[in-house]
Amino acid sequence: MDFDEFREFGHASIEFIINYLSNIRDRDVLPSVVPHEVINQLPRQIPEQPEHWRHILNDLEHIILPGLTHWQSPYFNAFFPSSTSAGSIIGELLIAGIGVLGFSWICSPACTELEVVVMDWLAKFLKLPAHFLHETEGPGGGVIQGSASEAVLVAVLAAREQAVRRERERQPELSESDIRGKLIAYSSDQSNSCIEKAGVLAAMPIKLLPASEDLVLRGAALKAAIERDVAAGLIPVICVATLGTTGTCAYDDIESLASVCEEHNVWLHVDAAYAGGAFALDECADLRRGLDRVDSLNFNLHKFMLVNFDCAAMWLRDANKVVDSFNVDRIYLKHKYEGCTQIPDFRHWQIPLGRRFRALKVWITFRTLGAEGLRAHVRKHIDLAAQFENLVKADSRFELVAPRALGLVCFRAKGDNEITSQLLHRLMERKKIYMVKAEHGGRQFLRFAVCGMDPKPADIQFAWTEIETQLTQLNLEADQQPLENRKAGEIAELTQHLTGLQLQMDETLQR
Amino acid sequence: MDFDEFREFGHASIEFIINYLSNIRDRDVLPSVVPHEVINQLPRQIPEQPEHWRHILNDLEHIILPGLTHWQSPYFNAFFPSSTSAGSIIGELLIAGIGVLGFSWICSPACTELEVVVMDWLAKFLKLPAHFLHETEGPGGGVIQGSASEAVLVAVLAAREQAVRRERERQPELSESDIRGKLIAYSSDQSNSCIEKAGVLAAMPIKLLPASEDLVLRGAALKAAIERDVAAGLIPVICVATLGTTGTCAYDDIESLASVCEEHNVWLHVDAAYAGGAFALDECADLRRGLDRVDSLNFNLHKFMLVNFDCAAMWLRDANKVVDSFNVDRIYLKHKYEGCTQIPDFRHWQIPLGRRFRALKVWITFRTLGAEGLRAHVRKHIDLAAQFENLVKADSRFELVAPRALGLVCFRAKGDNEITSQLLHRLMERKKIYMVKAEHGGRQFLRFAVCGMDPKPADIQFAWTEIETQLTQLNLEADQQPLENRKAGEIAELTQHLTGLQLQMDETLQR
Repeated sequence: MDFDEFREFGHASIEFIINYLSNIRDRDVLPSVVPHEVINQLPRQIPEQPEHWRHILNDLEHIILPGLTHWQSPYFNAFFPSSTSAGSIIGELLIAGIGVLGFSWICSPACTELEVVVMDWLAKFLKLPAHFLHETEGPGGGVIQGSASEAVLVAVLAAREQAVRRERERQPELSESDIRGKLIAYSSDQSNSCIEKAGVLAAMPIKLLPASEDLVLRGAALKAAIERDVAAGLIPVICVATLGTTGTCAYDDIESLASVCEEHNVWLHVDAAYAGGAFALDECADLRRGLDRVDSLNFNLHKFMLVNFDCAAMWLRDANKVVDSFNVDRIYLKHKYEGCTQIPDFRHWQIPLGRRFRALKVWITFRTLGAEGLRAHVRKHIDLAAQFENLVKADSRFELVAPRALGLVCFRAKGDNEITSQLLHRLMERKKIYMVKAEHGGRQFLRFAVCGMDPKPADIQFAWTEIETQLTQLNLEADQQPLENRKAGEIAELTQHLTGLQLQMDETLQR
Repeated sequence: MDFDEFREFGHASIEFIINYLSNIRDRDVLPSVVPHEVINQLPRQIPEQPEHWRHILNDLEHIILPGLTHWQSPYFNAFFPSSTSAGSIIGELLIAGIGVLGFSWICSPACTELEVVVMDWLAKFLKLPAHFLHETEGPGGGVIQGSASEAVLVAVLAAREQAVRRERERQPELSESDIRGKLIAYSSDQSNSCIEKAGVLAAMPIKLLPASEDLVLRGAALKAAIERDVAAGLIPVICVATLGTTGTCAYDDIESLASVCEEHNVWLHVDAAYAGGAFALDECADLRRGLDRVDSLNFNLHKFMLVNFDCAAMWLRDANKVVDSFNVDRIYLKHKYEGCTQIPDFRHWQIPLGRRFRALKVWITFRTLGAEGLRAHVRKHIDLAAQFENLVKADSRFELVAPRALGLVCFRAKGDNEITSQLLHRLMERKKIYMVKAEHGGRQFLRFAVCGMDPKPADIQFAWTEIETQLTQLNLEADQQPLENRKAGEIAELTQHLTGLQLQMDETLQR
């Protein structure tokens, strides 16, 4: 493809994206494809000859898009947001166009230096402790990882290696494998599955301690577990706490966990993949309590900062502990800013050798939005979730299962799990909005997460109308089933609700 | 930023990239910045207000580009290629614009299904054994990982977990940590540093066996190591062989390694990050020998397939072994195409949970180039390296240190290492071309790798002229130093060369 064709294809693709994103509400958020439907529409081999870009965009429109779940749609309310923005999309374009790698300073100096800059920008914006800044004297700093999973794994592996070295000095009579066999780590049963997976990958058990009734992990639970394990001869290594759990966006109690970790020389990592964005807001200052006492921290920029996936910020209080654990170049970075370049070689701060120029999209996104725009975006998510929460509260058929937290509302239809489960099934069949369910203490609930590139109050109303209408419909259909299948309490509730519905229908018919 | 501004910024960025790439030869391949120079030109905080995109592109041009090493320049001859292409750049743009994640089938069906399709396309194009195809019955298939490092780590970790399970059954008297303490893995001392790092991360020693004089690892060396280790009570787990080593692009002997691995129930992984592209060529069919006997294989698409970093293809003979090792969902995929979607959930084939829609850029790149174009690209690299090899051979001051292999020529200035080292230093100072040096058996040498987005014969000639002119210059300057500092042999060689140079200069002056 020559540059003229590249130009045509490029400009057409910009228009394609604008058309896709600006009309995204016209599409069902979930696709109407069955497994293998996309595969079956495509040839089985690479075409022998080059094809014209028009055919490719045409297939993208008619084969690929109908097979997608539309994450940028405001009707996507599953998981957590993974939002993009104009600046970030163009950032990715420029990253690919410039095509550099940044595994050492010399292999592209600006790639490393811009990352140092934007990680400090972000740390200041989020009001993180000064020791996490590159510009502060000392061994701390931030790095962009691919995903929260990788950031957590880096912390787990570095903590593991540090513990092995420390224990070999402390207990020289033990072999390395004896020590490794005694290592133990901790998290809460509310933490993301990537934390359990990090334990599997690291060959170090991570105990998922039961969170309190309010889904929070506190120091007391950790202290009890550590004391039990130490008494049994085990060696506690790391605790992975969460600010903003996947299920309900609960916040572990960092202060009390930090006290226990400090007492037992345990690495404290905080997975703030979702909630980290709120650190920027004065009204959420409480969330930052205890962060000055943690060893490492991760936050996903696609969740609240409008930088598209993948881009996971990670800060280390002492990066040397990671470099020292992972470096196989035998060039030890004993102090930050030591060595010939005086700039970190980020390849030693992460798992892979290769590094994309992700800092460029962060830089562009932050500049196109400004700190003001970024804060406004987080506040918008909070406000829209509050709008949804009020709608839930105003409908007596529903109940909240946890306090609204940032952009997440956890709710359910009152009564048996079956109702909530059937409601979700029906919503998924209709494909107008997409939520996922979770469970705690035997109660199933739905997670409504504010997502999409640019959600509006009308989108929240749309989602709510869809949800409550479908519950109405479900109840109506249930009413047509034999009465003996139902319990007395349900019947009473349903009768009451049907009366209300009848009134609504009458009103509608009179109009 | 509204869609009108997005359109302007997008179109301007397409033009920016075309301008950058089409004039890339005008720039020094290495930047003229000192450490902190980029950092010092940038503000210390996120701007409070949004900035106009013109300011951003302006800073990109005047602050960032001068700080880059230009990987897409044909004068970049370091490491291995990391080439992009028009199709791949636009692929990244569209991936970011569509903004979906693909960690399970339902969370974006086409994202998973297109990956199944392009991995089968690529496996057929590279003539890999049928059991690596998704479309073949059985548990094999391909997956896109972020980097070769991750692919190797996945193989190492999966092999480790499989070995632990196997040994626990075989030796129930041993504890899990006893078994883990006995695990041992193998690779060659020519393998990439990411393999040693995988061993560190996996907490399983990887012995780097000395390669033969020709830099190849063969079965005999592996057999001796395994027998020694088994006799010492260790448990051999995996051998990571390389097709195309980083130093000299040597090819380990897969057939003989496979025989040893089969005998000892050892996982055989092949890192073909660079050389894998040549599997597509009939004239390189020898490289594929033994691949039907390996358990897993990785190949980087940015090295030869013009798909920009990151995109590392990995094939597994039995993906269940990875899923079984990594899955923390407790939904076991015992057979491929089992489960409700009958399509792989790729999140269990990799380390992170999140997944970019990388298959889209592969699909677009392959279609814009066609199989013909992809093969032509690999052949072009080989031909250009042959051109460079001939230039080296024709100059008696230089010598090859290994046979040319694909697009890599390893050579040195005859004589002491100091000459080669000084030559590289001078070339780096001049910034016209970028090579890195390596060392084997006490001899330092330069690696000339054909790289860049679109290298031409004239670019090879440019690089060679730069190299040989600088050696001439170096020798001239050395001649101006006191004679007593040099050895007799060097003086004779230099005198002979200077006579030739004098003749050239006389000719030049007469013109």
